[in-house]
Amino acid sequence: MRSLLDQVRHWVVKEPQKFMVYDEDRKFTYEQIYDRARRFSGGLRKLGVGKKARIGVIMFNSYRWYDLYYGLSAAGCILVPLNFRLANPEILYQINDSGCKVLIFDPEFTNVVQGIKSSLKTVEHFVYTGETSPFDEAIPYDSLLDAEPFEENITPDNVFGIYYTGGTTGLAKGVMLSHKNILANALNFATDVHFGADHVQLSAAPMFHLADGAMNFTITLTGGAHASIKAFEPVAVFQAIEKFKCTTALLVPTMINMLNNHPDATKYDLSSLRLIVYGASPIAPDVLQKAIDLFQCDFCQLYGMTEAGPILTVLQPEDHKVDPDNPESVKLLRSCGREVTGVQLRVVDKDGNDAKPGEAGEIWARGDNIMMGYWGKPIETEEVLHEDGWYETRDIAQMDENNYLYVVDRSKDMIISGAENIYTVEVENAVYKHPAVLEAAVIGVPDDRWGEVVKACVVLKQGMPVTESELIEFCRQHIASYKCPKSVDFMGSIPKSGAGKILKRELREMYWKEHERRVG
Amino acid sequence: MRSLLDQVRHWVVKEPQKFMVYDEDRKFTYEQIYDRARRFSGGLRKLGVGKKARIGVIMFNSYRWYDLYYGLSAAGCILVPLNFRLANPEILYQINDSGCKVLIFDPEFTNVVQGIKSSLKTVEHFVYTGETSPFDEAIPYDSLLDAEPFEENITPDNVFGIYYTGGTTGLAKGVMLSHKNILANALNFATDVHFGADHVQLSAAPMFHLADGAMNFTITLTGGAHASIKAFEPVAVFQAIEKFKCTTALLVPTMINMLNNHPDATKYDLSSLRLIVYGASPIAPDVLQKAIDLFQCDFCQLYGMTEAGPILTVLQPEDHKVDPDNPESVKLLRSCGREVTGVQLRVVDKDGNDAKPGEAGEIWARGDNIMMGYWGKPIETEEVLHEDGWYETRDIAQMDENNYLYVVDRSKDMIISGAENIYTVEVENAVYKHPAVLEAAVIGVPDDRWGEVVKACVVLKQGMPVTESELIEFCRQHIASYKCPKSVDFMGSIPKSGAGKILKRELREMYWKEHERRVG
Repeated sequence: MRSLLDQVRHWVVKEPQKFMVYDEDRKFTYEQIYDRARRFSGGLRKLGVGKKARIGVIMFNSYRWYDLYYGLSAAGCILVPLNFRLANPEILYQINDSGCKVLIFDPEFTNVVQGIKSSLKTVEHFVYTGETSPFDEAIPYDSLLDAEPFEENITPDNVFGIYYTGGTTGLAKGVMLSHKNILANALNFATDVHFGADHVQLSAAPMFHLADGAMNFTITLTGGAHASIKAFEPVAVFQAIEKFKCTTALLVPTMINMLNNHPDATKYDLSSLRLIVYGASPIAPDVLQKAIDLFQCDFCQLYGMTEAGPILTVLQPEDHKVDPDNPESVKLLRSCGREVTGVQLRVVDKDGNDAKPGEAGEIWARGDNIMMGYWGKPIETEEVLHEDGWYETRDIAQMDENNYLYVVDRSKDMIISGAENIYTVEVENAVYKHPAVLEAAVIGVPDDRWGEVVKACVVLKQGMPVTESELIEFCRQHIASYKCPKSVDFMGSIPKSGAGKILKRELREMYWKEHERRVG
Repeated sequence: MRSLLDQVRHWVVKEPQKFMVYDEDRKFTYEQIYDRARRFSGGLRKLGVGKKARIGVIMFNSYRWYDLYYGLSAAGCILVPLNFRLANPEILYQINDSGCKVLIFDPEFTNVVQGIKSSLKTVEHFVYTGETSPFDEAIPYDSLLDAEPFEENITPDNVFGIYYTGGTTGLAKGVMLSHKNILANALNFATDVHFGADHVQLSAAPMFHLADGAMNFTITLTGGAHASIKAFEPVAVFQAIEKFKCTTALLVPTMINMLNNHPDATKYDLSSLRLIVYGASPIAPDVLQKAIDLFQCDFCQLYGMTEAGPILTVLQPEDHKVDPDNPESVKLLRSCGREVTGVQLRVVDKDGNDAKPGEAGEIWARGDNIMMGYWGKPIETEEVLHEDGWYETRDIAQMDENNYLYVVDRSKDMIISGAENIYTVEVENAVYKHPAVLEAAVIGVPDDRWGEVVKACVVLKQGMPVTESELIEFCRQHIASYKCPKSVDFMGSIPKSGAGKILKRELREMYWKEHERRVG
């Protein structure tokens, strides 16, 4: 396979009439999606949009993402999926930075587009998916499909997409992923987890995010079907599973937690589910156990990042079998698994040597899935990508004797308090054990004596009050005293990314800005 | 993964103590094979044999092939597996053509090596696997393992092996396959057929051949185990399946036929077998049906060639389910299936357009598995490899409406008699239906009136006589008269390649040489 489109073409060869995409009452066969993709490509060509042009997209989940994934592949254009939860200046930056020639948007984002329109430097064509034209020069989405099929000649090393990633500091960086990167990731995952054509995958996480994208590309590679809901909402998830008999879905822990705690969770027929794939952040063992009880299916954890296309490790379903009499089996739930097929992984100490088992170090990875680099950022690329293929992830982890990886903290998420290293995941796991806790995030906040101290930000379940001191006392039963939160803030909600990942950086800023004002 | 060795390393990460290789009473874990490979690489280095050096090998099947597959990968050296059934001048040609620096051989081939030794141009080191030294300067095999582990830094585009392929005319050509080619082939096959770590594969076909190699690389990729027998022999196959509880094996139709007809076939416990993979030539439906009855397992057919790394198509187990009331289901058994995951296939007519369904044309293929080219033969490479990745296989096939491929003949195997195209496979299928036929090969022989006429070369089962006219009359019941053999020659055996493939070329030569003498 040389391009993402070849995934679809392969199944047009094998099962052209098999349904590939479901969306509410619409459904499309592999042949129909292939035809749409090639006409979409023809439509772009008619507009004068050629190979390597960047196409910005501000869209909810829908069947149209398959036009984008595979139509832009047919056209040799580059997908720039934009996170619609970002603020206008951030979206503007990403469109200008990547130099998008086309901007495609859902009607809900007309205000966003109009708000940034005068500052866009490169966009020549605005494409709207809604019923009515938002402004004069905008082109209706369906008109792109009204064209002769066209397929550009592309190579596996052509860029498929530029996915922006926040990073922990500074401006977002555009991660360039080639067709080879994306295809390698899908082959790796499919080989590791044995996906087959009988799968029906639910896109409940946002499709602009590579985590859901990776799931989609793997399912297409292996001839499965896709269903999607506009955006994550527990009842919509339950209904879609029941309606489309979904067998698998990628969810993030915060979503699983919301599904677990939904009062109507048991009212739907969820028996078609065979495998929930989760990732994007670690999961508390108690949350996972509840999900296993609710869904009665296999669970599989992924760890990775956009730069890795994205999968680096898999915690297999068999690694999730907890034996209550064996503490080791529970311990595995805190791991994100072992290197996926096709990926080579190292945990590297400060001197560049392999860390010993149990010793924390930086995760390095190598494989065909690793990004080509950061768009327009050769220096940042050089800093993390070695010539021999190794990529420095900046995440900190330890490996046990069996090479299971434990991400002790993502980049800046480690708290150093009184010279002790405190890994927030451990503290969060303790807080989550309390029955009244709905969501929790643990961060370091400034402290004159200790540098940083541990703070837990907590959302409680309705009608289940608990006090700060009760919760801290509860934690003491589970982890060492020095790791326990020194304070707890009860909140109505915790800031999250479009992918549902808790935004520790924003949480931290709330506390550190105040500190800087006072100290500075 | 960047090299074949990375396949082993991945499972050392995951299951170092899992058994990887069985051979008679020897067994080796993944960790042991990894260690042997890296020491073998160190041993070569000590000899002064560096990256890209070619290593010729004349060996029966054994555990040592895993040192070769993975040790040469660690060393960045290039494997040149030699077919020991070739005549001395042919072996000599391949060693000199590839410029082997090292020659490794089993004691059974000491005579071969001594016979060609004075004509070898590049070999600096002779390595023997036997108990006693065959001549003064020869180095014992095990001494190579007595070294510090060493791993060369190689890229996926480095050549892994040069596999010589006969072709239909002229001298053998060395097919250069990179690590990327071999890894892609394994990922494609594993994704298509869902191999898992519970497989135990039997190498009964020769390991110097890429068909068995491909099976080995796929099983290692997915963490399975390997068993091997020295060379194909029915009782050895039955015993190995029983002893090592083999789950899968690659066999060629002539081997399956011999197993089917062996009087002791039912005396062994073959219940561990789950999947027989067959290929290298088409199989007669009757032979397949008998094998299904005997082995009671799934069957999967591969089609491809050395240049393709080697797999192009797979006829899946579900395609082998014959419904006696549905002639279409029997028809599929004559197909070699559809493009494997990762491969794009075309059937091309004389004008370079896609042939219509049912129309014969040349098979073209594209994918990461396609060879880098022929060693030292840029013109021959250019003739079959396009810049956009398409490879012209020279095989003739037709595709049905569902994109199942029917290889109507391998390159020169089509008989043209009185302007009618006769595909020998069809005739062979008819001949095989006769209960007295053990083996059959159909070729075109010279005829003054028709140019060529159809001849069947047949080996009969013991104690089951049949006459020429009876057999021709029998064929008439199954195929059109013009396709039936005009003559039948009864033989004691039919010439076969090391891979068990019937050598049509040699058969033909027997008849055409006589003709040339007479005509010329």
